[in-house]
Amino acid sequence: MSNATINHQFKLAARPKGTVKDSDWSRTEEPVRAPNEGEVVIQVLYLSLDPAMRGWMNDAKSYIPPVGIGEVMRALAVGRVTASKNPKFAVGDHVTGLLGVQEYAYSDGKGLTKVDPKLAPLPVYLSTLGMPGMTGYFGLLEVGQPKAGDTVVVSGAAGAVGSVVGQVAKIKGARVIGIAGGADKCRYLIEELGFDAAIDYKTENVAEALKTHCPDGVNVFFDNVGGDILDAVLTRLARGARIVICGAISQYNNTTPVKGPANYLSLLVNRATMTGIVVSDYYDRASEAAMVMAGWIQSGKLKTREDIVEGLDAFPRAFDMLFSGANNGKLVLKVA
Amino acid sequence: MSNATINHQFKLAARPKGTVKDSDWSRTEEPVRAPNEGEVVIQVLYLSLDPAMRGWMNDAKSYIPPVGIGEVMRALAVGRVTASKNPKFAVGDHVTGLLGVQEYAYSDGKGLTKVDPKLAPLPVYLSTLGMPGMTGYFGLLEVGQPKAGDTVVVSGAAGAVGSVVGQVAKIKGARVIGIAGGADKCRYLIEELGFDAAIDYKTENVAEALKTHCPDGVNVFFDNVGGDILDAVLTRLARGARIVICGAISQYNNTTPVKGPANYLSLLVNRATMTGIVVSDYYDRASEAAMVMAGWIQSGKLKTREDIVEGLDAFPRAFDMLFSGANNGKLVLKVA
Repeated sequence: MSNATINHQFKLAARPKGTVKDSDWSRTEEPVRAPNEGEVVIQVLYLSLDPAMRGWMNDAKSYIPPVGIGEVMRALAVGRVTASKNPKFAVGDHVTGLLGVQEYAYSDGKGLTKVDPKLAPLPVYLSTLGMPGMTGYFGLLEVGQPKAGDTVVVSGAAGAVGSVVGQVAKIKGARVIGIAGGADKCRYLIEELGFDAAIDYKTENVAEALKTHCPDGVNVFFDNVGGDILDAVLTRLARGARIVICGAISQYNNTTPVKGPANYLSLLVNRATMTGIVVSDYYDRASEAAMVMAGWIQSGKLKTREDIVEGLDAFPRAFDMLFSGANNGKLVLKVA
Repeated sequence: MSNATINHQFKLAARPKGTVKDSDWSRTEEPVRAPNEGEVVIQVLYLSLDPAMRGWMNDAKSYIPPVGIGEVMRALAVGRVTASKNPKFAVGDHVTGLLGVQEYAYSDGKGLTKVDPKLAPLPVYLSTLGMPGMTGYFGLLEVGQPKAGDTVVVSGAAGAVGSVVGQVAKIKGARVIGIAGGADKCRYLIEELGFDAAIDYKTENVAEALKTHCPDGVNVFFDNVGGDILDAVLTRLARGARIVICGAISQYNNTTPVKGPANYLSLLVNRATMTGIVVSDYYDRASEAAMVMAGWIQSGKLKTREDIVEGLDAFPRAFDMLFSGANNGKLVLKVA
């Protein structure tokens, strides 16, 4: 590593109010140093952009502490080890972990996992074989528990989590209806991913469309979105329905309080359940899921799509795409 | 039965908007007729007043059809058979069922259950040994699933359902915190029912009080109330908490949409579950529960309290008491 190697970074400059502004980030740089004893230096190759990152920017109690002001923004990434004083990692190893929004990261090896670029392209380790895929896989199977013949509805269906949820539900024999924004995404769900139906929330009345597509009610709803869509699905629950609360992207940029589901008493009428899921509870079973899903990918049963934006400097713009729904597939930033 | 016997009734005159007004009821009378073949005539002795009745007055899809305009208001009751052309019931039998807000009811025997006035006073068959008791018993044990040492919080704690929930949770070894309105009710919970703590929502900040009384979070929340109290408890959930949605009395008279729980994403952070319960799902196990609870009542472990209002004509006023929280114990109308 030459003395001239510079690490460009995006740090959290201010806690955003509502939608994140450019001024909430500071772009900084510093020279890359040699690893300390036990450390590795990793060149970040691909950065994952995830809705959960918006939550990490708030100063609120959650399942993980917030990112501090002045700290490098937290992000999952895939990289390559460029220097190592840790016996478990060699130069040239590919790894995934919370490397942050920067070009180079240091790690003592904790939370770092080796990945095999021959088994799947590196960006797939940030989507279907990474955190979003695990979230969809375990959230659907462990919490949603779809049975063959069930009607499964998923919101944010064209996203990294939703597309796994829908396809795994199909593999398990369910009827699957996806809710997504825009005709292109809806076509993708049906024609590429094999969903039974898709609802375009930008042009359709979701409650009416659910009536059409779910005549016997909804047995499993996997919700990434919250807000009005959650309320619409609540009106269509089947007896004993399971709602998996994975996220609420419609509410993350709110400056007013979150819109709670006004129709939650439908849980009572329908003896239904609403349960939250956090993927880290399943990390000890991640390799099991990755093996199963890698097999499905190779046999063509499970399709994975990444939307790759080029260059670290595109980070603020790419981050905004998460909330405008402008991405097609898992949003990944190619850093190097 | 003489020709002169008159059946006084309260019928639903109009669908109430918000709080029920006197003009939403019509008081009618008609002569009592002899039973048809297969029928019994029952003199209503005690009428049950339950928050669920407010829901039955709305023209909305629910777990039971709404009461029709011009129909006798639906209500659970205990009565005595005064005439019978049904071989299963004899004159003098005491029975419970949906007899309606009236002095005399006709029944073909369906949904009618004999009760033993020697085992417990008749009003107890409308409270702890009736629908509210079953709701608390099965909702807590089957859905809430408290373990010894768990912290259990119940709203509407001094009510017919809540007082059973709290006492059964104590019997199962949990710490129990009740939320109720007013110092008298809170004192009753602690001094009479053995709750570990009580929160007076009329004078205390519920969220702050929960911090004090539930330092390790809430494992089970049994909610009869909804609204701000549900939102406050959501901020104090322990990992893996179970919320039992039994009702939302704070929202039943709304003319605006129900206030959904704005803090529902706490389900996600805490991997918690919110599940609705409808007692009729457990009717096939009602006699099992009644036997268990009758044993607890006799051994002094389970206390039951009925607030008895006199006279059918007091019905509209007594019904309002449900929502003002003016009753102490299960609200029962003594009709004859």
